[in-house]
Amino acid sequence: MSKDNPLYKSVKKISSKKEYMKVMPREIKKVLVANRGEIATRIIRACKELGIKTVAIYSEADAKSIYVKKADEAYLIPGDPIQAYLNYFRIVDLAKQTKCDAIHPGYGFLSENPEFAEYCVKQGIIFIGPKPEHIALFGDKMAAKKKMRELGVSILPGSDEPISDLKKAKEIASEIGYPVILKAAYGGGGRGMRIVRSESEFETLFQSAYNEAKKFFGKGDVFIEKYVENPRHIEIQIMADKYGNVVHLGERDCSIQRRHQKIVEIARSPSLDEEVKKELYRTSVKAMFKVGYENVGTIEYLVDENNNFYFIEMNTRLQVEHTVTEMVTGIDIVQKMIEIAEGKKLPFLQEDISMRGYAIEFRVNAEDPAKNFAPSVGLITSYHSPGGPGVRVDAAVYKDYVIPPYYDSMIAKLSVWALTWQDVVNRARRALDEFIVRGVPTNLPLLRAIVRDEDFINGKFTTKYIDEKLPTFNLKEQERNIEDLVAAIAGALAAYHRL
Amino acid sequence: MSKDNPLYKSVKKISSKKEYMKVMPREIKKVLVANRGEIATRIIRACKELGIKTVAIYSEADAKSIYVKKADEAYLIPGDPIQAYLNYFRIVDLAKQTKCDAIHPGYGFLSENPEFAEYCVKQGIIFIGPKPEHIALFGDKMAAKKKMRELGVSILPGSDEPISDLKKAKEIASEIGYPVILKAAYGGGGRGMRIVRSESEFETLFQSAYNEAKKFFGKGDVFIEKYVENPRHIEIQIMADKYGNVVHLGERDCSIQRRHQKIVEIARSPSLDEEVKKELYRTSVKAMFKVGYENVGTIEYLVDENNNFYFIEMNTRLQVEHTVTEMVTGIDIVQKMIEIAEGKKLPFLQEDISMRGYAIEFRVNAEDPAKNFAPSVGLITSYHSPGGPGVRVDAAVYKDYVIPPYYDSMIAKLSVWALTWQDVVNRARRALDEFIVRGVPTNLPLLRAIVRDEDFINGKFTTKYIDEKLPTFNLKEQERNIEDLVAAIAGALAAYHRL
Repeated sequence: MSKDNPLYKSVKKISSKKEYMKVMPREIKKVLVANRGEIATRIIRACKELGIKTVAIYSEADAKSIYVKKADEAYLIPGDPIQAYLNYFRIVDLAKQTKCDAIHPGYGFLSENPEFAEYCVKQGIIFIGPKPEHIALFGDKMAAKKKMRELGVSILPGSDEPISDLKKAKEIASEIGYPVILKAAYGGGGRGMRIVRSESEFETLFQSAYNEAKKFFGKGDVFIEKYVENPRHIEIQIMADKYGNVVHLGERDCSIQRRHQKIVEIARSPSLDEEVKKELYRTSVKAMFKVGYENVGTIEYLVDENNNFYFIEMNTRLQVEHTVTEMVTGIDIVQKMIEIAEGKKLPFLQEDISMRGYAIEFRVNAEDPAKNFAPSVGLITSYHSPGGPGVRVDAAVYKDYVIPPYYDSMIAKLSVWALTWQDVVNRARRALDEFIVRGVPTNLPLLRAIVRDEDFINGKFTTKYIDEKLPTFNLKEQERNIEDLVAAIAGALAAYHRL
Repeated sequence: MSKDNPLYKSVKKISSKKEYMKVMPREIKKVLVANRGEIATRIIRACKELGIKTVAIYSEADAKSIYVKKADEAYLIPGDPIQAYLNYFRIVDLAKQTKCDAIHPGYGFLSENPEFAEYCVKQGIIFIGPKPEHIALFGDKMAAKKKMRELGVSILPGSDEPISDLKKAKEIASEIGYPVILKAAYGGGGRGMRIVRSESEFETLFQSAYNEAKKFFGKGDVFIEKYVENPRHIEIQIMADKYGNVVHLGERDCSIQRRHQKIVEIARSPSLDEEVKKELYRTSVKAMFKVGYENVGTIEYLVDENNNFYFIEMNTRLQVEHTVTEMVTGIDIVQKMIEIAEGKKLPFLQEDISMRGYAIEFRVNAEDPAKNFAPSVGLITSYHSPGGPGVRVDAAVYKDYVIPPYYDSMIAKLSVWALTWQDVVNRARRALDEFIVRGVPTNLPLLRAIVRDEDFINGKFTTKYIDEKLPTFNLKEQERNIEDLVAAIAGALAAYHRL
């Protein structure tokens, strides 16, 4: 963590033993869930199974959400619908008033805010997650890369600072090796971004990147980084207790993304080389062991076509896609987070953890494929979720629920499992076809197209998958309408009587 | 099979090679599902995952059932609501008219009717199940026991024929060894039934059994059988292809029954001795190998307190509780039934099959605990099924569905899985609490009481469990009412504002 980071001082403060004493590991009997939607439900379920009482919080917009009903107690946080889940003074205050031992932050909102984690500690509330200093460290992307490089993890080679000088830039580029990517140092959105594939085109592309960046952001400086062609996004799930025991729960392939948002996540990777997997596990566990990491976390890598891998970032929290890891390992990750926070030792060694079969998670988003996936809001007029073998649904909605406009568009996660890759794809197709959401457009047509695509079926996908495939997909709603069905049945019946 | 069995001749007839030729194994592209409710949905799901088209049949009473909507085609069988699923001439005719390759009978109805299986064969339709002669053999309970004894499987010692002579009866009893049970040979319902624990009380009890049987059934003759104290009902799932490859998929403990109806089924047994399990697997596989069994079947045993086991009967079909075996083995049993019927070899050897964790199935029945579990029918006004990790629901109903009075009272199967026995019980408790069915009384309060009972939690249960426990359970509806919840939330909110 850079010393300029405003979090640095506050995190430093809590490193004294005395402050920690307040939250000595102890049995957790009641948890405040500082989140909403499906992940709030997920956490409440884990608590119920452990015999732990739960307190939910909700904004006025979420008053009719399922998780509010499932918690033992639920409290409205009036006012701004987003601040409801961010105002941590109020949330910690409520946790104390309701005699909660701990807070689970879920993902998003306060989950990666080290000040919040620290504030919990200071107020004597157990924060169910990693230590504040690790949240701060990995929250600072530059500091995280530096740390990981120190720990022997390969990171994407690149300039450590903004570059404006052509000669210096060229030197760095040839050190890194082509292709490289130039990125505007003071802005984003693709402006000032150029991929340079050989030294001969460097000068021209550098100048045009510099000029564009200068035009849009006032400064033309760029970062130079190794450009990875057709990478796969592979992440390693880490779990560690308070006693230095670190294990991995295998990898997830999250290459299938639209605009850097994951849509489909897979455990185990159906195509990654076994030796590369082993090296990723080894590297990740070793790094986490060295930093003294605690609770769960996910280390994200890009893997190139030659099976080189590069650390991108680490998420110091529960991930949306933890479900697929739960399915292949059989381990309840959310329960383990709570038990680790209680001070329990991991009940398994690495060799006790086995991966069975394959799981795929699909994020069902209220987004309109016909309107370039713009978020859709409003009344769900019909809702039917899939069931049967190997199907898990983590949903936040139901028939007659009104999707509010303030939050993430994800309304449900469909996770499917089967013994082989082919079987899980077949099951995914069946389960996605069973899923009915009416009233608001969703991305279900996109998900259905993916599981019918030959490259997906053959396990061939990189982070470019959606960009390349989207134009070829027919996203017209494939769902059969109930009315159509009734008509079809009536027709079939008439036909039978004519037989 | 006894030669007096009316099925004997018809089954004999089809043993000629020529008849079999008509249904030589071939790829199955379209299946008629000769069943209703949740099991019809289950079979349709398996077919969809295999890319197989489906044809459903339905009575007028089932026109709004979910499975009707999920099938590719659905046909009303007008007239009697039960005969709709039993009239096999009509069903096979429909299969032919709709160009189906095969029929899956599910459980109940035609599933164990060897004449139906034979008729399918003769009409060139693949019957997805065992050979007709095996259905006939194991359908004749006496013949089945005799056969199994020949195959080296221990059966419950007892008289082979009705006994009326006291002296002979006493001889048989002491051969068998006390305790024995006397059962009226020409009637049932507990009349003329006596448990005799020692020779000294034999004469008195024999006379009273004889007299009672004579009074109720006209004849006083009894069967004498070994009486098993506190037995467990353990069954072995068998799977066999057309090439003599037989495997087992482990055991299920189905001891928890009410009036001989299974309510809760468990895989793997949490308490059965590992050596006994092995012996049961060995015995079962060997017997099925010797008879040349094909497709799936379940061999049911009673296991006594000293771990002796006795064959009771064999079910030559898919069982209701196959879900728990699917969860622990990861194998899709219904898909495998279809593939076996197509002539595919089992894709695994015994050593490839592994059992992971524990699964429990709960039969959610529309029965009123307040009225001695009388079946309840009518409109489901509210329905919410559980979800999240390790939860599988196979349901036939939904909100606004009207339960018809003609069929079995089971409306849904809740199956839960977790890595350890303790975890699966905790998960079961959570999932059962989430399950909401309103409008018709259900046995959910009984199921919720079971998962809170110490003996159940400790894996201690025999077939006497429900009889012994029922009087101690509080079956008042534990569900929290939505209205109560809204009130509770409002109250909590007011309390928070007062803080």
